[in-house]
Amino acid sequence: MEKPKHIVLTSHPGRLDQRGPQIQWGQADPKQRGPIIGSVQDPTKRNVIGTHSGSYAVYRALAVAAGQLDADHVPDLTNTAPIVPIGPHSQWGEAGKIVSLDPFGHMIGQVFAEELKDGMDIRPTIAVTKARLELIEMQDAMRQGRLKPDGKVLLDTGEVNVTKMAVEPVWYLPGVAERFGITESQLRRNLFEQTGGMYPELVTRPDLQVFLPPIGGITVYFMGDVAKIGDKDCKVACRVHDECNGSDVFGSDICTCRPYLIHGIEVCVENAQNGGVGIIAYFRKEGRALGEVTKFLVYNARKRQEGGDRAETYFERTECVAGVQDMRFQQLMPDVLNWLGVKHIDILVSMSNMKYDAIVSQGITVGERLAIPDEQIPDDAKVEMEAKKAAGYFTDASLDPDALKSTVGRNLEQF
Amino acid sequence: MEKPKHIVLTSHPGRLDQRGPQIQWGQADPKQRGPIIGSVQDPTKRNVIGTHSGSYAVYRALAVAAGQLDADHVPDLTNTAPIVPIGPHSQWGEAGKIVSLDPFGHMIGQVFAEELKDGMDIRPTIAVTKARLELIEMQDAMRQGRLKPDGKVLLDTGEVNVTKMAVEPVWYLPGVAERFGITESQLRRNLFEQTGGMYPELVTRPDLQVFLPPIGGITVYFMGDVAKIGDKDCKVACRVHDECNGSDVFGSDICTCRPYLIHGIEVCVENAQNGGVGIIAYFRKEGRALGEVTKFLVYNARKRQEGGDRAETYFERTECVAGVQDMRFQQLMPDVLNWLGVKHIDILVSMSNMKYDAIVSQGITVGERLAIPDEQIPDDAKVEMEAKKAAGYFTDASLDPDALKSTVGRNLEQF
Repeated sequence: MEKPKHIVLTSHPGRLDQRGPQIQWGQADPKQRGPIIGSVQDPTKRNVIGTHSGSYAVYRALAVAAGQLDADHVPDLTNTAPIVPIGPHSQWGEAGKIVSLDPFGHMIGQVFAEELKDGMDIRPTIAVTKARLELIEMQDAMRQGRLKPDGKVLLDTGEVNVTKMAVEPVWYLPGVAERFGITESQLRRNLFEQTGGMYPELVTRPDLQVFLPPIGGITVYFMGDVAKIGDKDCKVACRVHDECNGSDVFGSDICTCRPYLIHGIEVCVENAQNGGVGIIAYFRKEGRALGEVTKFLVYNARKRQEGGDRAETYFERTECVAGVQDMRFQQLMPDVLNWLGVKHIDILVSMSNMKYDAIVSQGITVGERLAIPDEQIPDDAKVEMEAKKAAGYFTDASLDPDALKSTVGRNLEQF
Repeated sequence: MEKPKHIVLTSHPGRLDQRGPQIQWGQADPKQRGPIIGSVQDPTKRNVIGTHSGSYAVYRALAVAAGQLDADHVPDLTNTAPIVPIGPHSQWGEAGKIVSLDPFGHMIGQVFAEELKDGMDIRPTIAVTKARLELIEMQDAMRQGRLKPDGKVLLDTGEVNVTKMAVEPVWYLPGVAERFGITESQLRRNLFEQTGGMYPELVTRPDLQVFLPPIGGITVYFMGDVAKIGDKDCKVACRVHDECNGSDVFGSDICTCRPYLIHGIEVCVENAQNGGVGIIAYFRKEGRALGEVTKFLVYNARKRQEGGDRAETYFERTECVAGVQDMRFQQLMPDVLNWLGVKHIDILVSMSNMKYDAIVSQGITVGERLAIPDEQIPDDAKVEMEAKKAAGYFTDASLDPDALKSTVGRNLEQF
């Protein structure tokens, strides 16, 4: 292909003969649904707003600018197909069940084999592989007798065998708007204006209904046999976890994130050992999707306020800085569960009422809800825990109104 | 302010009387440099392309669209200022030393107090707080006698006291272009085209020289006294780490990321105990900045290729899928070290020649380079390690040409 010599701005509708194949979102037949074409090589073949790899498109731009990546490079997808098949599941073809990822994103090599052969630049938006996890906490759980190795899910060494999936966001804008109970044009206008003018096509190209937003995606860690999902006697354990780098990686003790994640992994391992499956769905929504700078500003405001860091004023401090208590919006979260074919969760390892409500409202039923065991809550994280329980988080203990008032965290002088 | 009723497209130059204050990048005096105004509330006051919070601006857009966040909300920054002062350092005013973050980003409340009072919507791009880390690996290091608690940096419980900083990217485009040895217009054009048309202002507004890209930032975990940096007798230990969620959080054994990070933390703790400081700079560059979907596709291609997963063909597989071996580009990485005032690193806990070269080329000298101890390399990660050593990574052992050929990882049937 000859490269265009001039820069093509995107703020005006393209010519009708210069458009990629139409997308009919929600069709169970991938051929009728049509491929997602987010590659930037040939602007006349695209059928989405945005491009692949989320934020990392900015790094790809650097690679091309620096002359290290050929702008015309097409991925060689040999041997990259999913290690285990996933789906199709009935939810893939039910209108509105999945609006924020492409259910066929992992199997483009299979369902769009002809189009790929014809030179259409379709790229996977989901990848499925296997991994073995070395988690020192699992060795601890074995030592303390909470877990026993079975040589399959959990090895003698404490290692855990998983199937894992990386999922990029693919937003069908009319469906996303519906989840939030707003109009599509409200959604498009705010996405444009509140990002400082990212992608004018959001407001100039209503014909493009699919958006690949430059945000982090989802990683699923799956214990047990993926094919078993949907079997009547296969119990599902699940933790839906939002990223918290400070705790998940560095073990910061101001919140319960890593301890709860590890508890979730333990529950998932055990459930898989008993013939069920375990699902950890990890969402890149750092600091309640406010980002880490805001999160650290809030920590300072909490620790310095008069009366110290108190459960009572926990949400207030976030609201002062960020304008909202939370920006994670669980409305789109259940999509990945519907993609996996989940219809019932036997054990939901989460106390969040927002997550629970979102899951149930998308037609997935929930059996038991599992709180984090008290002994796994770091001392300084008790402020968060009491505040959340008082705000409606699930708890199996009775609410203690005094705890909300009396729970105070470490102040800055105590570090 | 009355909100404009029509959507203002951004693809054409704004009126000269409708622009925020000028930015004179690289000025040591913040008043002369001028504030960064990335807030979207009043488009006529902005002086950058893009907006705050990186990718999370998309979530803010959802919050406004859903009616949960008032578009006019201005952060109440009471009590959010840095816990400890950082800078100013001489590097802040040296041309070209810092081009990808705002050195005054944490102290806007101090240096732009008047402007804030006058209602200018300036927001912090850096936040500085304290934290206590509960890392089960530190308990292990103490049990094995590698670390001893001192009650200050490392407590009896194994907890580590740190100062931590979250840093958002603020790119001065002419400076970024210079680091890559390309023209500013090449950089702008590729940032626009290779992202599928994100921010037309990149090509239509050469007067706007600062870009807040929607990518992840940096987190610094600092052990010891921040004020000591620059003291002649204060030794600096440092690990520069690029995010790897699979290993850092989940302990996947195909790479050395978490083990090397933990080793870095140990070295930093010990150095701080000995009167020096320790710096862990954590960059959000998942999967060599290719993103996790590409990473998992490469894992599959590595494990399935003829002859199995071999050190010999390690980089080749990434290049087939992604078009490059690596997209992390260390060129901008040293900025955060220059922001902290680092002039010499006594112990660099990294084997990467790319990181080393970048640090040295930005005028920071390096004493010792520390490889990951052999016993901390997971079995399946030996493929990566041998491939990297053969490609020029630092090693203190002599190179073994046979190891490159003979090192083979687990195949898919062995999971």
